[in-house]
Amino acid sequence: MKPALVLLSGGLDSATCCALAKKGGYTLYAMSFAYGQRHSVELDASKRLAQFFDVKEHRIVTIDLAAFGGSSLTSSLVVPKNRINDTSCGDIPNTYVPARNTIFLSFALGWAEVIGCTDIFIGVNALDYSGYPDCRPEYIRAYEAMANLATKAAVESKKMTIHAPLLHMTKAEIIKLGIGLGIDYSLTHSCYDPSPDGLACGCCDSCLLRKKGFEQAGVPDVTRYR
Amino acid sequence: MKPALVLLSGGLDSATCCALAKKGGYTLYAMSFAYGQRHSVELDASKRLAQFFDVKEHRIVTIDLAAFGGSSLTSSLVVPKNRINDTSCGDIPNTYVPARNTIFLSFALGWAEVIGCTDIFIGVNALDYSGYPDCRPEYIRAYEAMANLATKAAVESKKMTIHAPLLHMTKAEIIKLGIGLGIDYSLTHSCYDPSPDGLACGCCDSCLLRKKGFEQAGVPDVTRYR
Repeated sequence: MKPALVLLSGGLDSATCCALAKKGGYTLYAMSFAYGQRHSVELDASKRLAQFFDVKEHRIVTIDLAAFGGSSLTSSLVVPKNRINDTSCGDIPNTYVPARNTIFLSFALGWAEVIGCTDIFIGVNALDYSGYPDCRPEYIRAYEAMANLATKAAVESKKMTIHAPLLHMTKAEIIKLGIGLGIDYSLTHSCYDPSPDGLACGCCDSCLLRKKGFEQAGVPDVTRYR
Repeated sequence: MKPALVLLSGGLDSATCCALAKKGGYTLYAMSFAYGQRHSVELDASKRLAQFFDVKEHRIVTIDLAAFGGSSLTSSLVVPKNRINDTSCGDIPNTYVPARNTIFLSFALGWAEVIGCTDIFIGVNALDYSGYPDCRPEYIRAYEAMANLATKAAVESKKMTIHAPLLHMTKAEIIKLGIGLGIDYSLTHSCYDPSPDGLACGCCDSCLLRKKGFEQAGVPDVTRYR
């Protein structure tokens, strides 16, 4: 079985992405990041999911994005609430973390090379999202092109593929897909601003998108709210 | 004065790169990495250089490349010695660190965005080098293209430039240039396998390239060897 490296944040999208890689017959390797988030709830969810999907190895890499700040997710800025979601890039909220996906994919690229893996899965989504530039299809394509020049593996003609299977799906479609694949979404966590015991706030961008997704999918919302 | 972010390893190339950015009239920001190197000699050199060039801010980011290994620079593999240097990519030595420059540039990209900087300098070199894939011109171009899709700054049309001014220079040319710019190369460190007190081994790839550079430049070699 070919190895696949899945970026597993602990959220709904990365869980669905992981289920798709598993269905694709890959041996799963999962990578998560402790990146100065204000909560560890997300990492706890990634650990539960790694177990649920029976991944061969789950690496949690500690990186210090808080060292340069610039985001409400890594600094003391206030997470915006009850925003009318705007999916255009003209209105990128302060939950945007500079270069986050680029940094995550770059660590994945390094580990992938060491384990001989040429398939990286990332659960980015360009429809129901917050307008982050590093969630767009053109970004993923450019990253893949760069990755195929960056490594010894690339020089040896082992083509790296960055899989972003959720790119063009709505949140509702993702949830329906995941339910079909047997995912227990109560294991996932999406909220940007949870209570210390992991309850979702229900009104940050991420909660709003998730709520709407369950509603539109016609599936009971298993999220535990405050 | 426009800000420039310089990746400052503490070696001869990054020092020269920093001098060029300074000459270009930029306010300097330097970024170095504690990445599980087997020695801190390199980081000490980067601190000396940051002082020498009077950089506005020097950030040392701790990252755990040793977590995935795969290189003699981050694990217990033995650094090769007295190799006849082969600059073709067909013979990449085990000092190659998977995705290293991609990871370094990605952290630089994040910090650059936070400080409003659109010029990143990296001292890679595609002539007198060890055949690392992430030192080639086509890699740098692909990274820049990706970077210009990755960030909020990019969406706002602030074009990011990855400067690699040493790309097509020989080590001797770099040294002559640096001497002309007033660099004290005794502050720099290049050896992959120094003694605990920072003396160079004289026979790893990096030492061999450096030695040859000083010889060909006709400049006294100020390196302290064991």
